[in-house]
Amino acid sequence: MTVRSRSLFDELFASEAMRDIFSDRARVQGMLDFEAALARAEAGLGVIPPEAAAPIASQCRAERFDLDRLAQGAALAGNAAIPLVAELTDLVARQDPVAARFVHWGATSQDAMDTGLVLQLRAALGLLDADLGRLADALAEFVRAHQRTVVLGRTWLQPALPVTFGLKAAGWLSATARGRERLRALRGRVLVIQLGGAAGTLASLGGRGLEVAAHLARDLALAVPDLPWHAQRDRIAEVAAALGLLAGSLGKMARDLSLMMQSEVAEAFEPQAPGRGGSSTMPHKRNPVGAAAILAAATRIPGLVATLLSAMPQEHERGLGGWQAEWESLPEICLLTSGALTHAVQVIEGLQVDAERMRANVDATRGVILAEAVALALARTLGRSAAQALVERACRRAMAEGSSLRDVLAAAPEVTTHLSVAELDDLCDPAAYLGLAGEWSERALAQYLRDARRSEA
Amino acid sequence: MTVRSRSLFDELFASEAMRDIFSDRARVQGMLDFEAALARAEAGLGVIPPEAAAPIASQCRAERFDLDRLAQGAALAGNAAIPLVAELTDLVARQDPVAARFVHWGATSQDAMDTGLVLQLRAALGLLDADLGRLADALAEFVRAHQRTVVLGRTWLQPALPVTFGLKAAGWLSATARGRERLRALRGRVLVIQLGGAAGTLASLGGRGLEVAAHLARDLALAVPDLPWHAQRDRIAEVAAALGLLAGSLGKMARDLSLMMQSEVAEAFEPQAPGRGGSSTMPHKRNPVGAAAILAAATRIPGLVATLLSAMPQEHERGLGGWQAEWESLPEICLLTSGALTHAVQVIEGLQVDAERMRANVDATRGVILAEAVALALARTLGRSAAQALVERACRRAMAEGSSLRDVLAAAPEVTTHLSVAELDDLCDPAAYLGLAGEWSERALAQYLRDARRSEA
Amino acid sequence: MTVRSRSLFDELFASEAMRDIFSDRARVQGMLDFEAALARAEAGLGVIPPEAAAPIASQCRAERFDLDRLAQGAALAGNAAIPLVAELTDLVARQDPVAARFVHWGATSQDAMDTGLVLQLRAALGLLDADLGRLADALAEFVRAHQRTVVLGRTWLQPALPVTFGLKAAGWLSATARGRERLRALRGRVLVIQLGGAAGTLASLGGRGLEVAAHLARDLALAVPDLPWHAQRDRIAEVAAALGLLAGSLGKMARDLSLMMQSEVAEAFEPQAPGRGGSSTMPHKRNPVGAAAILAAATRIPGLVATLLSAMPQEHERGLGGWQAEWESLPEICLLTSGALTHAVQVIEGLQVDAERMRANVDATRGVILAEAVALALARTLGRSAAQALVERACRRAMAEGSSLRDVLAAAPEVTTHLSVAELDDLCDPAAYLGLAGEWSERALAQYLRDARRSEA
Amino acid sequence: MTVRSRSLFDELFASEAMRDIFSDRARVQGMLDFEAALARAEAGLGVIPPEAAAPIASQCRAERFDLDRLAQGAALAGNAAIPLVAELTDLVARQDPVAARFVHWGATSQDAMDTGLVLQLRAALGLLDADLGRLADALAEFVRAHQRTVVLGRTWLQPALPVTFGLKAAGWLSATARGRERLRALRGRVLVIQLGGAAGTLASLGGRGLEVAAHLARDLALAVPDLPWHAQRDRIAEVAAALGLLAGSLGKMARDLSLMMQSEVAEAFEPQAPGRGGSSTMPHKRNPVGAAAILAAATRIPGLVATLLSAMPQEHERGLGGWQAEWESLPEICLLTSGALTHAVQVIEGLQVDAERMRANVDATRGVILAEAVALALARTLGRSAAQALVERACRRAMAEGSSLRDVLAAAPEVTTHLSVAELDDLCDPAAYLGLAGEWSERALAQYLRDARRSEA
Repeated sequence: MTVRSRSLFDELFASEAMRDIFSDRARVQGMLDFEAALARAEAGLGVIPPEAAAPIASQCRAERFDLDRLAQGAALAGNAAIPLVAELTDLVARQDPVAARFVHWGATSQDAMDTGLVLQLRAALGLLDADLGRLADALAEFVRAHQRTVVLGRTWLQPALPVTFGLKAAGWLSATARGRERLRALRGRVLVIQLGGAAGTLASLGGRGLEVAAHLARDLALAVPDLPWHAQRDRIAEVAAALGLLAGSLGKMARDLSLMMQSEVAEAFEPQAPGRGGSSTMPHKRNPVGAAAILAAATRIPGLVATLLSAMPQEHERGLGGWQAEWESLPEICLLTSGALTHAVQVIEGLQVDAERMRANVDATRGVILAEAVALALARTLGRSAAQALVERACRRAMAEGSSLRDVLAAAPEVTTHLSVAELDDLCDPAAYLGLAGEWSERALAQYLRDARRSEA
Repeated sequence: MTVRSRSLFDELFASEAMRDIFSDRARVQGMLDFEAALARAEAGLGVIPPEAAAPIASQCRAERFDLDRLAQGAALAGNAAIPLVAELTDLVARQDPVAARFVHWGATSQDAMDTGLVLQLRAALGLLDADLGRLADALAEFVRAHQRTVVLGRTWLQPALPVTFGLKAAGWLSATARGRERLRALRGRVLVIQLGGAAGTLASLGGRGLEVAAHLARDLALAVPDLPWHAQRDRIAEVAAALGLLAGSLGKMARDLSLMMQSEVAEAFEPQAPGRGGSSTMPHKRNPVGAAAILAAATRIPGLVATLLSAMPQEHERGLGGWQAEWESLPEICLLTSGALTHAVQVIEGLQVDAERMRANVDATRGVILAEAVALALARTLGRSAAQALVERACRRAMAEGSSLRDVLAAAPEVTTHLSVAELDDLCDPAAYLGLAGEWSERALAQYLRDARRSEA
Repeated sequence: MTVRSRSLFDELFASEAMRDIFSDRARVQGMLDFEAALARAEAGLGVIPPEAAAPIASQCRAERFDLDRLAQGAALAGNAAIPLVAELTDLVARQDPVAARFVHWGATSQDAMDTGLVLQLRAALGLLDADLGRLADALAEFVRAHQRTVVLGRTWLQPALPVTFGLKAAGWLSATARGRERLRALRGRVLVIQLGGAAGTLASLGGRGLEVAAHLARDLALAVPDLPWHAQRDRIAEVAAALGLLAGSLGKMARDLSLMMQSEVAEAFEPQAPGRGGSSTMPHKRNPVGAAAILAAATRIPGLVATLLSAMPQEHERGLGGWQAEWESLPEICLLTSGALTHAVQVIEGLQVDAERMRANVDATRGVILAEAVALALARTLGRSAAQALVERACRRAMAEGSSLRDVLAAAPEVTTHLSVAELDDLCDPAAYLGLAGEWSERALAQYLRDARRSEA
Repeated sequence: MTVRSRSLFDELFASEAMRDIFSDRARVQGMLDFEAALARAEAGLGVIPPEAAAPIASQCRAERFDLDRLAQGAALAGNAAIPLVAELTDLVARQDPVAARFVHWGATSQDAMDTGLVLQLRAALGLLDADLGRLADALAEFVRAHQRTVVLGRTWLQPALPVTFGLKAAGWLSATARGRERLRALRGRVLVIQLGGAAGTLASLGGRGLEVAAHLARDLALAVPDLPWHAQRDRIAEVAAALGLLAGSLGKMARDLSLMMQSEVAEAFEPQAPGRGGSSTMPHKRNPVGAAAILAAATRIPGLVATLLSAMPQEHERGLGGWQAEWESLPEICLLTSGALTHAVQVIEGLQVDAERMRANVDATRGVILAEAVALALARTLGRSAAQALVERACRRAMAEGSSLRDVLAAAPEVTTHLSVAELDDLCDPAAYLGLAGEWSERALAQYLRDARRSEA
């Protein structure tokens, strides 16, 4: 099937570790882990002969299965577990025909597919948590290092007020922390086995169903849900949604960085590496490949989340169309999120910041971004509206004449009546008008440290 | 503007209470509540003159504002707070020109809009929580009442095994509980003030910003976030996502009910009311209006959630396009969810269940749905594959001949060698093959009772 | 219901003309136009008494209907036509009880709702076509005026090569033309009546159905489709998709403009107007309100298009949930598109272009954007790879040293061996390296003129 | 990379032919076809040495390229063309170092990627057109064969009126025809080359750009667009949207069939094949695998279309994030659509229809579905409202008593005053109340025949 591979952009959009987790082989192994644990649980309880477990479990190794044949079987059967169970039964039968009778005992295809998926999701959540930790560490460094680095605060893509680069990084850090918190919070709901048999009643296991479920869950280190969830897919869609939120936050960071990397702005840069971000025709180009990959993920994931939500109204005890719509969509979200996160870690760990240019860009506004400071000072005596109108006129004049706001104001008697030149100078110093930038940053760092300690514990 | 109202389907798709919460008037009031509380906080701390708070707060009543004029102002200014603050300043100035200078002191438009939105969301979450409680109560009744009501379990829209209607209802109940749990869990992250001033630093409040924030938050009974979140929109998108999950679960319930209401199935029915669900041409029709409205919501909300996620990568300190995309989309999600939930409460509270028809539909399968039971019994001696093949042949024969599976099996020596007729009769009794239907239902009820006790506490 | 209006952002996001087209009143009038035309068609053919048409048609005026009552009726009945027909029948009965018996004769609710919607869509398409014409006119002016205005071509948000502002505008113009072409092309499929009666067979009209359909269509200046399309919704979704494409193209233009409006770039500006785009706290701000509204629409519409597509698999002869999901979603798309288009017309008609700053931004790259020109010249002798590597080194040096590419190259013997200084100067002149910018622009203008002539014809 | 393949569901969700078209190898070949044709065009015009074309073209064979290495290169460079061109240059250089200098002459990466994509899309559109032809042929057979097969018309999933199965099939056929028409209509806009060089001006080709474009286009049998479209992505998104509409129509057909396959309805069945749609635990199961795969596609594609639309507002001359978001999303849509269409062909070509059961389901309504017929007959004398009320009461009585509507009506003096028993019998015969079912079907067939003739021509 090499000729039909579609992995040309895998390296760009998905992390290697997540590709391992969601490879066909790992998907098969997830289902096989279910089958092995089920056999052990049932054998331990005497539901199947005690001696059947080992021969079954010994064949539950994905590398023994022909993935192409499974793919063809899945197309015929309509799911991946039917051909897998058939193949597993054959493999076991070659060693132990009696044990082979007890493969997949009492379970339904979806039990294997869903529990296998949950195992994959656990690995995925662990991977993302670790990478989020790395990202937070790297961001925290920038917050600390740039507490006093003045940068232009921009709203509606227009200059607003001076802020610090530390505060910008604190915003990214804070969102990263919330993204991690959400992924941790859903573990309790999501990391559960699926075991319901054909229609959820586990009738196939007679009176032993709950015991088997408990043993199976313990074996796989998952929890037993209150009841099977074959057609209640909120757990699945919840993972998608949480990753969608995370990807959106990463996209926000990438958006900021891509704007700061514009040659006209030139305040921050992705790390360089030989060949990275080159152009086939323009030797001077250094394209922001990391930001592009992150923004591509942030563009693609919302539609995929919508797919998972759209697929939720599944029919009766097992859906027709909705369930099947999940099979490739949720892995896709995990892959894209991991790719975005890996790029984010690389970009942030190697980010080059040009603090001088940041300051130069602030200065290039000729002080109009401190209009608020002046307006507030004047408002105490003139009232907010009058003060604002006055300063607005001064701003327009400064911009029209190419002079600084400070100079325009200093030449205006209706200003100097209320403010001395020294006061004006103070009001027009960007580094003196940073408000809580430092305090907010400290708060974000404090929260980060609490999280980091909790992670270690 | 009546001529341009677009509320023809408001009654159908949105609950009245949620329409109140997201009316223009309530949106304006949310912003005004922010302005009043801000004035009180600042006056209390001496940031503005103590006597300015009362005149400002006294004008913060939405009914004093001309909504049409605000709409025109919003179009010009690009947001709703600018004309609101201008209007509020005018109103205050008529009473107290000095106080008018301190309206909106130090805040930015988005501070008012976001904090106002959070206040609306708090009301919305409270409303939904109460309705989810009612829905859970009604569902729990069905779980209890139908523990022994046999109904056809259906997978892929095909008959699978007998289950109980109580188990179906338990699945709905369990998803309802998780939906409620998610909405409660996000309150800690979402119910926070927004107060950052023009670019997030609160420089406009000099050194008093954190104190003002703390007072403001206490006044509004919200929390202070670690730092302002003007362009970090994960909190907002998180509400959307959680409602999307809830709507999906409601859609699943409505899907099931709409299928059960088919005349060929006829197992459950929406409550009737005069004029409800009639047809303009077919006097015999009773259309499932509630299920349709719920499914319409479950169809519409995923795309709206995708919008909120797509809008997340907002530029720098305040976004251009992304923030604006939220303003109508998140209210729409709240409205549609509330409408779906209200319909769900009505439908479930008045649901008519035909247990006899449920049993008749089970019997109409002539026992083939018990194929698994027989196959499992035979598998002990024949092995799973051979047993399944044997029973599969018998099923096909029963379906082809119009006889029952039991009769076909009873006439087959390769079966009767292993199973007596009495054993066959037992195996072919649907009510005897319900597995854990009762236990799962009890587990869901127990969880429901824990939740209910917690709600009361 | 004023207290519950949700129109605070109507002026910002939707054009006034489109709000008229999709107001409740216009929706009601659309259905009434259907009912009047149906009565005339049936009376003309003797299907109903000839004298019944006039009394019915005379009451088909939306202003006679109580919109609030219709909204309540719609919630009960599950659609808007049932209460409308009931009310219409009452109104007619007061004048002519006999005629009242023949209101809505043979039709089903969806016939009225869908045909009414098609009439609204026709008006919407006409409105958009006219606005697209205005936008194309304005864009064509810029294409013509800026054929020689050099501006930095930017790829991946990095400087690439010089282009002309005329070429940028030509790209916008060309997309505008294709958007208009698509809207015109779908008219043939979409502008058809819906008339099928309760289940599509028009059995209610005996043998006269096709004749009635033909008369009805002629009366409304619509076509008769091959067969009713109650549950085949591709026509509806097609309108949504075409508007989605248009909104995307407008969004692309707004994205470009918003980036050019950045203070660090400062190449183009939205028109100013008193109060437009101000800030509640920053007197110097002039926010790009038009671009923001367009980008908000381009962010919101994709999810709404997905809704319409998701809603397509409607059940049997009339859907349950899918049809209902269309009712507010398609109007929303029309409204947002019209708003975006109106903003685009305003922004482009009043766009302020700073050609000097464009040139200054080009020059600020110190010639590295002409690396390709030099590399191509050198490639003739050195080969593409070697030439590119050489120029890449020169670029890096120029950027590191703050010198111009020309100067670095002129000092490099491995370059001057192949190129004279005069050749280097030519190669490093941005205005001399514009390739087909003029020809492409002419082609776009020629296409525009063909379209314009066709529109007049 | 086998271990990381993710193709387990490829056979189920995508057709083999489309997987060939969108394999990595075919994607590479598409770009190579561009490079070969470009070299030929430039050599023919003397832009590059005439003898350079053959050595370049001879290496433009995808099987000579190491896909894994390209994937790694794409991750580094940020697109697939840069490593491809580098590799191609190396291959050519081994044969002819001089020719190697002229590989990719004057073009940019996106020229190769987009033109290659257009070539893939042309193949995809051809494939889909052929399959749509097959589907239309098969559907037309059903339309013809079932002109008189009465089946229950169902609205809101409730019985409405009798229709014919031919009419249902005619609705599917008609939508299929429109889907095909749309795909044909967009060819003119979409099947164009991309050739603009680094920033769209083709400056790299001096004055020869238009000539090269014309030759290149002729070589590839594509058209020359009015101007390059690197960042104007409406053509790309248009393909996505048209496939989304098609998938929605296929989903509607699959929805209908899945509902008809319910055991309680049992009117139509997917073709059976050994092993197809089995269950791992329920030997009697025959799951509608085809319908499930189609519905899964119809669930997944809307979100992917939204992605393409969301990605449209791309920055300046080449986008950052938006363009990259297309690379896997559009192929995914093509693959899913092809899979759905292939399943649709299989399902329809082998569809088993149970006309007797259709009639039995009609009869099981005991005539209430003819309420309209009776009401209309009575309305002539009683008026629509009174007639409808009378028949509504009769329906309720029939349903409550388990008698037929005809019998209830025949026993009601207020009915028999107006209608004789013979008239009642006629009115209550479903086969006599089919209206235009036949005419509509003929119209759909006539349209189909016109299309088929046009396809042959």
